[in-house]
Amino acid sequence: MTNTVSINPSSPLPELASGFFAGQSITELGDHFRDRSLTSRALVERTLAAAVRLNPILNCFVSIEQKEALAAAEKADAELSKGFDRGPLHGIPVAIKDIIDVAGKLTTSGSALFADRIAASDATCVARLRAAGAVLMGKTVLHELAYGITGDRSLHGASRNPHDPTRMSGGSSGGSAVAVAAGLVPVALGTDTAGSIRVPAALCGVVGYKPAFDAIPTDGVHPLASSLDHVGVFARTARDALLAYEILADQRVAGEPMAQDHRVGWVAPAPFGPVDPAITSGGLDVLRLAGVEPQSIAFDEIEDLSGIFSAIQSSEAHLAHRADLQHASPPIDPEVRERLARGGEVPAWRYLQAMQARRRLSEQAHRLLEGFDVLAMPSVPTTAPRIGERSPMVDGVVVEVRAALLSLTCLWNLIGLPALTIPAGTIDGLPFGLQLVGAPDRDRALFDFAQRIESAVRIAA
Amino acid sequence: MTNTVSINPSSPLPELASGFFAGQSITELGDHFRDRSLTSRALVERTLAAAVRLNPILNCFVSIEQKEALAAAEKADAELSKGFDRGPLHGIPVAIKDIIDVAGKLTTSGSALFADRIAASDATCVARLRAAGAVLMGKTVLHELAYGITGDRSLHGASRNPHDPTRMSGGSSGGSAVAVAAGLVPVALGTDTAGSIRVPAALCGVVGYKPAFDAIPTDGVHPLASSLDHVGVFARTARDALLAYEILADQRVAGEPMAQDHRVGWVAPAPFGPVDPAITSGGLDVLRLAGVEPQSIAFDEIEDLSGIFSAIQSSEAHLAHRADLQHASPPIDPEVRERLARGGEVPAWRYLQAMQARRRLSEQAHRLLEGFDVLAMPSVPTTAPRIGERSPMVDGVVVEVRAALLSLTCLWNLIGLPALTIPAGTIDGLPFGLQLVGAPDRDRALFDFAQRIESAVRIAA
Repeated sequence: MTNTVSINPSSPLPELASGFFAGQSITELGDHFRDRSLTSRALVERTLAAAVRLNPILNCFVSIEQKEALAAAEKADAELSKGFDRGPLHGIPVAIKDIIDVAGKLTTSGSALFADRIAASDATCVARLRAAGAVLMGKTVLHELAYGITGDRSLHGASRNPHDPTRMSGGSSGGSAVAVAAGLVPVALGTDTAGSIRVPAALCGVVGYKPAFDAIPTDGVHPLASSLDHVGVFARTARDALLAYEILADQRVAGEPMAQDHRVGWVAPAPFGPVDPAITSGGLDVLRLAGVEPQSIAFDEIEDLSGIFSAIQSSEAHLAHRADLQHASPPIDPEVRERLARGGEVPAWRYLQAMQARRRLSEQAHRLLEGFDVLAMPSVPTTAPRIGERSPMVDGVVVEVRAALLSLTCLWNLIGLPALTIPAGTIDGLPFGLQLVGAPDRDRALFDFAQRIESAVRIAA
Repeated sequence: MTNTVSINPSSPLPELASGFFAGQSITELGDHFRDRSLTSRALVERTLAAAVRLNPILNCFVSIEQKEALAAAEKADAELSKGFDRGPLHGIPVAIKDIIDVAGKLTTSGSALFADRIAASDATCVARLRAAGAVLMGKTVLHELAYGITGDRSLHGASRNPHDPTRMSGGSSGGSAVAVAAGLVPVALGTDTAGSIRVPAALCGVVGYKPAFDAIPTDGVHPLASSLDHVGVFARTARDALLAYEILADQRVAGEPMAQDHRVGWVAPAPFGPVDPAITSGGLDVLRLAGVEPQSIAFDEIEDLSGIFSAIQSSEAHLAHRADLQHASPPIDPEVRERLARGGEVPAWRYLQAMQARRRLSEQAHRLLEGFDVLAMPSVPTTAPRIGERSPMVDGVVVEVRAALLSLTCLWNLIGLPALTIPAGTIDGLPFGLQLVGAPDRDRALFDFAQRIESAVRIAA
C-alpha cells in the first residue's frame, strides 16, 4: 500500500473544521476588533454556535460557558471602545484543559474521582489569560488524570480527531487540540508531561508548544509527575502560540532573532523506536522547503529512554495519586488505575538511577545545542491510530501504542527544553508534525524558525 | 545514680591524649615555625612517634606515611626559610578519612571490597590541603563504606574513644575524630552524611564542622548518599576548623561578624527522641556561660524525621553500592550489607514523599533562621556507648543505637545548612557536644559564636 503524503499542513474534514478560527490568526482578528469591523461579542456568538454544533461529534469540550463568555466578550468590546487595550488576546476566545483551575468551576481532571471538585481560584496561567482580556469559553476533555497519551480514556469519553472522528485526538490534552483544530478557539491551554500537548497537536494538525520547564507557573494545575509537568499552549500558527506564550509566561520570548546562518540539527529518530518513514522524510522535506539542510546528530543512551522516562513518570504519578488509589470510591478507569498502581512498585534506586541518566541526557542535549540554533525531529512516529487501538503497526512493527506515541516527545520533558510541534503534512489525510527544540533562553530563534517553515509550507501547498 | 557533669570541655585519658597537638592550635604552631623555634620536620617526627605509639590502642590510622610526611615537612621548612609562605596550614600535619582519594594511595572505604583500590589522583579537598602546604600523615579508620554512625564495623576494626577505649569513637569518620582528640593531628578530614563528622567529634570531645552542602567539593570522595554527603573537618578549636575550612572551600567564610545583639534560637531536642537531660542542661549552661539566653523554637514534622531521613539515605546508599552487593566476592560486614540491601526495597513514591517533606523542613529552617543568627541544640543525645552496643539506654529508654546517635544531626544533612559541634562538657568523664547551626552564607557569625563559647568555657573550667 502506498501512502498519499502531502505537505498540505492541515486539512480536517471541512464540516468538522468549520469553527470561525479555521483561517484566522489572532493578530488578524485583533486588527478587525480595532478597526471596528468585528466585535468580540459577535465572534464569541459564532464560536459558541460552532462549539455547540461540533462538540457532540468531536467531544472536545467538557463545559461551555455561554453566558460568562458573552459577558466577558462584551466587557472586552467596551474596554476597547474606551481605548483600553489589553493586547493581542483582548477579546479572543480561549479554552482551558480541565486539569487547570478556573475559579468557581469544576476541575474534573477527566476523572470520576473529581467530578464534584470546584476550584477556589484561578490557576496563575488562567489569571494571566483573563488579565490579558481573553474570553474563557470552557474546559476541554482530557485523558483521565492526564495519565494517557491516547486521549481515549476519560470520565467524558474520548475526544475525537477532526480529520477522522474514528481516530484518536491523542492525549492527554486531546480536547484542547481538537478545539483548535476544529477552529472553535484560536488558542487553548494544555499540559505536557510526556508529550500531552505535542502529541495531540501533531495528530490533529495544529501547533503545540511545550515551553521550558517552569516557564509557565504550574500552580493551580493539578500535578501528574511534578518534575516533568509543563503548562503550554495550542494554536493554529507559531505566531499565535508565541503571542499566547508571552502572556502565559508573563515575559517576552528570550534571546536574539534567528541568525541568517542558522544551524539546524536533525535528531535521527530511528534510535527512539519505529517511525513511519513517510513522517521522517516528510519532516526533512519541510526543512528543505524552508531552505535548510540539517546536519544529523545522535544521542547516546537513547535506547534506554523509555525505561528512564517511565521510572520517573510512574513513580511521581503514583505519589501524586497514591491517596486516590487507596481511598477512592468512584472508580478510576481500569487502564489508568493499573498504570498508577504499578508506579508504586518502582524501587527508589531505580528512580534515582533514572535521574542520573536524565542528568546525562540533559548534559548531552545542552552540549549538542551549543553547535545548533534549533534541533528538529518528527513529533510523533505515526498518524492518529483508531480510538481504543493499543497495538498499532508502525513501519511494519507492532508497537505498544503509548510507548510509541510519546517516544519522540518525552525526552524534552526529561530535559526541560522548549519544544514546538508544527504541522508538516498529511498521510492519507491524517496530519503529522515536525518537532523543533530550542536552546535554553533562546525561544525567539525557535519561533522565528517555526514561522519560516510555516511560510515555506504555505507557499508550497 | 548521679552523673558527674563537668564543663571541662575535653579530658581524654592523659596517656591517650599525648599527641603534640593536645594543647596547641595551628596558629600557635605556625607562629613557632615562623619565629624558627620549631620546624615542621621536628613536629612531624614527634607526631609520627606518638601515632605509632597510640595507634595500636586507638586504631585511628589505617596507614601512616612516615617517609612521605617527613619529606613534605622538609619541603615546607625549606619553603618557609626561603620566605615562601603558603598560609595557616603550611607545615601542619593532617589526616584524611580513608574514603577520600589521595593519589597513589589505597582508598579502602573501610571495606574488604576495596582493600586493593588505589586512587589515581587527589580528591579536590586533598589537593587543596597539599597546595596549602599541609603535611599528609595518613588515612584514618572509618565505619565500612561510611555507612554506620557507631564507627565499630570496619575492615580495620573499631576506632576507639581516647576517653575510654572500650567505648565507641562514633562514626563513620571515627578515626579522624580520634586522631584529633588524641592530639595526633590538629586537623583531619571527614565526611558527614547523617552526622558522621559531628557525632564522633562530640563523642570524642573535639570540634567537628559540616559545612553547607557542596561548600567543599566531593569529587574524589566516594559517595554514600549523594544528596546528603558533605566533606568537612575536625579540629581542636573552632578557629582551627575555620582556618582549615577556608582552605578546603577555597574561599573566606561568608557573611558579617556576629552582631553584638546576636539572637540564638534553642531547638528543643525532646521531639527528636530521647536525650540525656544532663546533655540538654549542659548545652544550655554553656550558652548561658557565654552570656546568651536562647529563645526556644520548635520544628513541625520533626516526629517523622527518622523515617524521612532513612528513606532518602538508604535509597541513595543502595544505588551507590548496588553493583557491589550483587557482584561482591569479598564480604561486606553483615550489618552493613543488610542495611544496604534493605535500602533497595524502599519504593520510589516513599523516597519522593520524603523529598517533599525535606523541602518543607528546609523551608521551615530557613524561615526560623530569619529570626536568629544561630540555632543551638545538643549534638548527640548520649555520651559514647560501649563498642558493639546496639541497644543503649538514653534517658531511661532503650533505643536503637544508630537512630539515637544521629537523631540530632541528620536534620542538617537534609537541609544542607552549616553545622558545627563544639565540646560542651563531660559526663562521668565522657564528652558531649553542643551543636550550632548557621544561616546560609553566614558562616562567619557561626564561627564567631563558637569561639565566644569556647572562651567562656575555658574561663569557667
